[in-house]
Amino acid sequence: MNRFASRTGPIRLGMIGGGQGAMIGGVHRVAARLDGHFELVAGALSSTEEKARASAAEVGIAPDRTYADYAEMAAREAARTDGIEAVAVVVPNHMHLPVARAFLAQGIHVICDKPLTGTLADAQALKAAAEASEALFILTHNYSGYPMVREAQARVARGDLGDIRVVQVQYAQDWLAEDPGDGNKQAAWRTDPARSGAGGATGDIGTHAWQLMRFVTGLSPTALAADLQAFVPGRTLDDNAHVMMRFDGGARGMLWCSQVAAGEENALSLRVYGTKAGIEWRQEEPNVLRVTPLGGTRQFVTRASRATTEGSRRLTRIPPGHPEGFLEAFANIYGEAAQAIRAARTGAPWPEGVTFPTVADGVEGVAFVEACVRSSRGDAAWVAL
Amino acid sequence: MNRFASRTGPIRLGMIGGGQGAMIGGVHRVAARLDGHFELVAGALSSTEEKARASAAEVGIAPDRTYADYAEMAAREAARTDGIEAVAVVVPNHMHLPVARAFLAQGIHVICDKPLTGTLADAQALKAAAEASEALFILTHNYSGYPMVREAQARVARGDLGDIRVVQVQYAQDWLAEDPGDGNKQAAWRTDPARSGAGGATGDIGTHAWQLMRFVTGLSPTALAADLQAFVPGRTLDDNAHVMMRFDGGARGMLWCSQVAAGEENALSLRVYGTKAGIEWRQEEPNVLRVTPLGGTRQFVTRASRATTEGSRRLTRIPPGHPEGFLEAFANIYGEAAQAIRAARTGAPWPEGVTFPTVADGVEGVAFVEACVRSSRGDAAWVAL
Amino acid sequence: MNRFASRTGPIRLGMIGGGQGAMIGGVHRVAARLDGHFELVAGALSSTEEKARASAAEVGIAPDRTYADYAEMAAREAARTDGIEAVAVVVPNHMHLPVARAFLAQGIHVICDKPLTGTLADAQALKAAAEASEALFILTHNYSGYPMVREAQARVARGDLGDIRVVQVQYAQDWLAEDPGDGNKQAAWRTDPARSGAGGATGDIGTHAWQLMRFVTGLSPTALAADLQAFVPGRTLDDNAHVMMRFDGGARGMLWCSQVAAGEENALSLRVYGTKAGIEWRQEEPNVLRVTPLGGTRQFVTRASRATTEGSRRLTRIPPGHPEGFLEAFANIYGEAAQAIRAARTGAPWPEGVTFPTVADGVEGVAFVEACVRSSRGDAAWVAL
Amino acid sequence: MNRFASRTGPIRLGMIGGGQGAMIGGVHRVAARLDGHFELVAGALSSTEEKARASAAEVGIAPDRTYADYAEMAAREAARTDGIEAVAVVVPNHMHLPVARAFLAQGIHVICDKPLTGTLADAQALKAAAEASEALFILTHNYSGYPMVREAQARVARGDLGDIRVVQVQYAQDWLAEDPGDGNKQAAWRTDPARSGAGGATGDIGTHAWQLMRFVTGLSPTALAADLQAFVPGRTLDDNAHVMMRFDGGARGMLWCSQVAAGEENALSLRVYGTKAGIEWRQEEPNVLRVTPLGGTRQFVTRASRATTEGSRRLTRIPPGHPEGFLEAFANIYGEAAQAIRAARTGAPWPEGVTFPTVADGVEGVAFVEACVRSSRGDAAWVAL
Repeated sequence: MNRFASRTGPIRLGMIGGGQGAMIGGVHRVAARLDGHFELVAGALSSTEEKARASAAEVGIAPDRTYADYAEMAAREAARTDGIEAVAVVVPNHMHLPVARAFLAQGIHVICDKPLTGTLADAQALKAAAEASEALFILTHNYSGYPMVREAQARVARGDLGDIRVVQVQYAQDWLAEDPGDGNKQAAWRTDPARSGAGGATGDIGTHAWQLMRFVTGLSPTALAADLQAFVPGRTLDDNAHVMMRFDGGARGMLWCSQVAAGEENALSLRVYGTKAGIEWRQEEPNVLRVTPLGGTRQFVTRASRATTEGSRRLTRIPPGHPEGFLEAFANIYGEAAQAIRAARTGAPWPEGVTFPTVADGVEGVAFVEACVRSSRGDAAWVAL
Repeated sequence: MNRFASRTGPIRLGMIGGGQGAMIGGVHRVAARLDGHFELVAGALSSTEEKARASAAEVGIAPDRTYADYAEMAAREAARTDGIEAVAVVVPNHMHLPVARAFLAQGIHVICDKPLTGTLADAQALKAAAEASEALFILTHNYSGYPMVREAQARVARGDLGDIRVVQVQYAQDWLAEDPGDGNKQAAWRTDPARSGAGGATGDIGTHAWQLMRFVTGLSPTALAADLQAFVPGRTLDDNAHVMMRFDGGARGMLWCSQVAAGEENALSLRVYGTKAGIEWRQEEPNVLRVTPLGGTRQFVTRASRATTEGSRRLTRIPPGHPEGFLEAFANIYGEAAQAIRAARTGAPWPEGVTFPTVADGVEGVAFVEACVRSSRGDAAWVAL
Repeated sequence: MNRFASRTGPIRLGMIGGGQGAMIGGVHRVAARLDGHFELVAGALSSTEEKARASAAEVGIAPDRTYADYAEMAAREAARTDGIEAVAVVVPNHMHLPVARAFLAQGIHVICDKPLTGTLADAQALKAAAEASEALFILTHNYSGYPMVREAQARVARGDLGDIRVVQVQYAQDWLAEDPGDGNKQAAWRTDPARSGAGGATGDIGTHAWQLMRFVTGLSPTALAADLQAFVPGRTLDDNAHVMMRFDGGARGMLWCSQVAAGEENALSLRVYGTKAGIEWRQEEPNVLRVTPLGGTRQFVTRASRATTEGSRRLTRIPPGHPEGFLEAFANIYGEAAQAIRAARTGAPWPEGVTFPTVADGVEGVAFVEACVRSSRGDAAWVAL
Repeated sequence: MNRFASRTGPIRLGMIGGGQGAMIGGVHRVAARLDGHFELVAGALSSTEEKARASAAEVGIAPDRTYADYAEMAAREAARTDGIEAVAVVVPNHMHLPVARAFLAQGIHVICDKPLTGTLADAQALKAAAEASEALFILTHNYSGYPMVREAQARVARGDLGDIRVVQVQYAQDWLAEDPGDGNKQAAWRTDPARSGAGGATGDIGTHAWQLMRFVTGLSPTALAADLQAFVPGRTLDDNAHVMMRFDGGARGMLWCSQVAAGEENALSLRVYGTKAGIEWRQEEPNVLRVTPLGGTRQFVTRASRATTEGSRRLTRIPPGHPEGFLEAFANIYGEAAQAIRAARTGAPWPEGVTFPTVADGVEGVAFVEACVRSSRGDAAWVAL
């Protein structure tokens, strides 16, 4: 349990997007400060000047470091000796590429919300930009920050499951089961292809499910067959997706993501079955990992308990039975980023065990979305990955 | 809560199969007698004479009504004035047709284990035989005997869910995750195409999932795409199946059945999402139905509680909080059969509310299996139903 | 898994009480026939002649073995060569003594509903009668028939928990949270001291909790302090009881039983904590026993799974994941009785592992009720047991 | 959902205790900064100079505001124009009085860990000091910061439960089931009467359960009877307590707290039963409140869902299905404190809805502990409150 101690002053953080009325920007701010790793000192929280000013004031950003233009901010912050070291990018998908590129070009680390971009072309361009920069690129697939997801990953990696045969991953919500109307800003851009990209549910939550599955299993999908649907009248992007998958090595899987599953709040879950054991993790009960050896008894492995491995324990703060939640998991992504950024400051070697989703994971997520769309247009034909 | 009273003497029952070492035969016997509707008076529990004799003696069948040949039994029982009125058929799948046909031909009601047959040709032949007979044909898709499955069906039927959009049905077990060897009689015939038919997991448990889904939703699938796999080396029949489905009216669904899901015992579950509400039922917690109206609060509707409808209440025996289980649900199929058989005795009209899986349901189950196999051979191409 | 085979003809059973409108009589009849151990052949289901006749006809008792007077039935059945071997006593508490005594005097085994009697004096008189008879006396504390209760008992007995420190037992219902009025026959006698005895909730369900706790832990309580309450206006018998307990050897416990716990159906649960491990069993999820070694991981031990001991496995019928419920547990008490009765027929030694609640357990239950009442009248003073 | 916006600069916070190796100090620091309400700027994290220095450096406190003596810190901080506005007191119980008094005397708000003090005399002295000061006193009974605890309170307050009859509250842990030895600093002082006070489990966790029960129900206990035990050899303070309670208005209750309940992590739960409904909340599943109207269906009311009241919604940050946990609940106490402190800055009226545990609640907690000890010494005699 690591996060209560040892740090050497917070990392100076900027933010693009996340102004008044936004949701995910606030989450990033909590995640950044929860463990004291970051201090928010600059921002272009809106592209509208007045709103940018009001939003920045609310979150304690000084007027002289308040911007309405991300490009200007990148340039001016880079020029300051106390300029930001990292920037959180929490704008709609289609803006990820230009914004991130501007900061990467200045050598400023980028912490970017998911999915990486709206299109695969953008994703590849962003990957190129990240690779060309010395700065780090962190993609906030926050679910992989949950300690018991790390526990699952660690157990799969050390062979507890044997050879994986079957993967079942699901992400069900109902918040878009009806047309939310124009008043809902978060819904509006997510259902608009121009800002969201090719995927609806697949892009917004399917990419989370995909990354979670890939992170825990370590498997590479080789092909998928997808049946996408837009159930709500007038919607152009998918709000429900059924996907079958085949993996290198012979495993098979199914992925379901939905924004129209009436009665479901944020039901992300992963089950993995191998020759030796099966595991199950559910985001709505995140402090427990169900582990059942073949022929054995189901165990409820709890966060921070003695049965856990170092893989999960390094990302917990408080004793077992004291629930940690979504914000702590999100903060873990920021914490991992912080450790890498600090090492980068001094050229120290990569800190042991530190890992976070990268631009490469982001490309794979967007590739998943585009493969789903392509397969579905082909009547669910198999698409190679 | 109905079953403790009002009956007019048990129905005389015979049994084919279910001798020493069998499992499902014992289940049928408990189900038949649990509510006092049936009395087992004759049987060909094995085709081996000595075993037939020993098995029959154990379950209290008189020596003069003990047979080793089902055809002989059908003929001789039909000739008795106190001959059996109904017969339970609990032999391997490939024997369902000849056995059932022999009794149907004598006007003896048939209560047959699932799946209906091993092949679609057999299934259609059996359907023809059933239609040609005045006797009733009952297929023991026992899961539809659970009161809360009936509750789900009743609520869907009265429109509580609105228009159905998404169906998720799963049936996961792990008992065939390894090669059970020859010693396991139940496993042996289920993994043998000659006796089991074209389907492995699809036939043995997929048909249950299929029937459950169809019973509750009332939807007709129009097409499916299936990816079948035999994970255990040397196995020819599928032990894991991933299926995507499309339904008349636009709903979509996924079905997963597996006999190799390490750590799962008998995890059959059904979730149905409509425009107005979602429901979930899990076989391992059968006394509760989760119901969540869109925008509302999840409710745990419990068996026999005041919130239940007549659809489920007529199939319960004891107050809420007193769990009923698998055997009671199985007995409900026998109970429904008994009411229909009693009505048939006197030519009375069909008793209100009585329903059970029929030969037509059985044909659809086998058609599902064959469609899965066909689709999978075509690389998961869509197959129309 | 034992009950599907090996028997030598059913035991001839009679019943006193359980006529039309009764609940528990029907439960006994299902329990008696579920495994084929008993055949109901005689009965005085009501003391009103017409109702006795109608009730008996409904359950298939022949007219010449239908009685309205239990004493007459005891005499006449004892005189028949095919007379009943055992009788189920399902009348209100105050009638247990005279009815049971009449049959014990004829050497007929008695299977009696709980609590043993309404008063301790009656209980002791019944114990004397049982001891003076060669017949067996079985008290249907049915919850101890659940396989996973047996599993708990077996694990405690073999020392898995170490020294027991704390016991928490609870039985919460809400069916008497309001005055049910005269129309509810089952409620009427249970809230009437003349028929029910000194205890209300303590007698009706507290005795179940007490027996469950004693059966699983093997501990002897040495003293209790009880705070009883009748919350519903006009009620004279307790409908809620809080009890603290001390045990031989130093363990401590709490017992709560209530008939006014709004929203609870039949929430009987037991938790036992020792120096090495803790266990929990909940009647509404009866197929699982939670076991947590100190410093270890919580395990969900499921009925019939490989992890179970012979102590529970001999009382299960079907594979893990196929829920067994209340009626199966009740039938297990009948099954244990059947094995003892069959051994008694021939003078065979007591069958290995067979156990059921006896008249001595019943006396202790009534002693518990009277101690609660006495303690509560003394302002929850400790009462020695 | 309130906490992502609108604030006017963080409140300057100091801390006493919470140096290297401490647990709860780190929790307070996270809670203080999670929503950006506080900035830690001064501290006496240890009374050992070197450790104080090292600990302060780790958490970013400047050397010139690092102290080893709380009295010196109170005096010097009070003298600075940028001195701390509030102080977090996270030292062992026996030090709460002198430390808090020193800061209250300077008009510095005190945020104090629970229990209030080790003795009732100290508690009353601290209450007098708090009342004599203009500064606020906040006691971190953090469990009442959980949104769904607020939801429970709001529902009880508006009469959803009718008249309360029965209260069941439990707090079970196992971390002191064995002698932890001297190495465990947190265990060492908690099992030492000189530092912890009269209560062991009763003081450390019983006071939490007591406060939770009182907060939600609004009931005043009038008397209790307690049976305390120290199970671990050599221990002088109780590690298990069984308590019966009577309330003004006729309700009855039971409280169990234990540090030796093998297999329990942090199992705090509260159930309240009234004439109209029952509710249940479990700390290990904090995002849900179970609500069951009498005669109705159990509802799972989830945090931030539409069914919730303003009472809980004002303390949530993120949408339903995104779990919030222990740290967020703790931060809610800090958030409530922040709002009251900001109002106090300007003399603004008390902010609507803001509430937190006070010194008076603390006195009642210590009175509970002393009443338990007194009752237990009197063989669980009733002690008036």
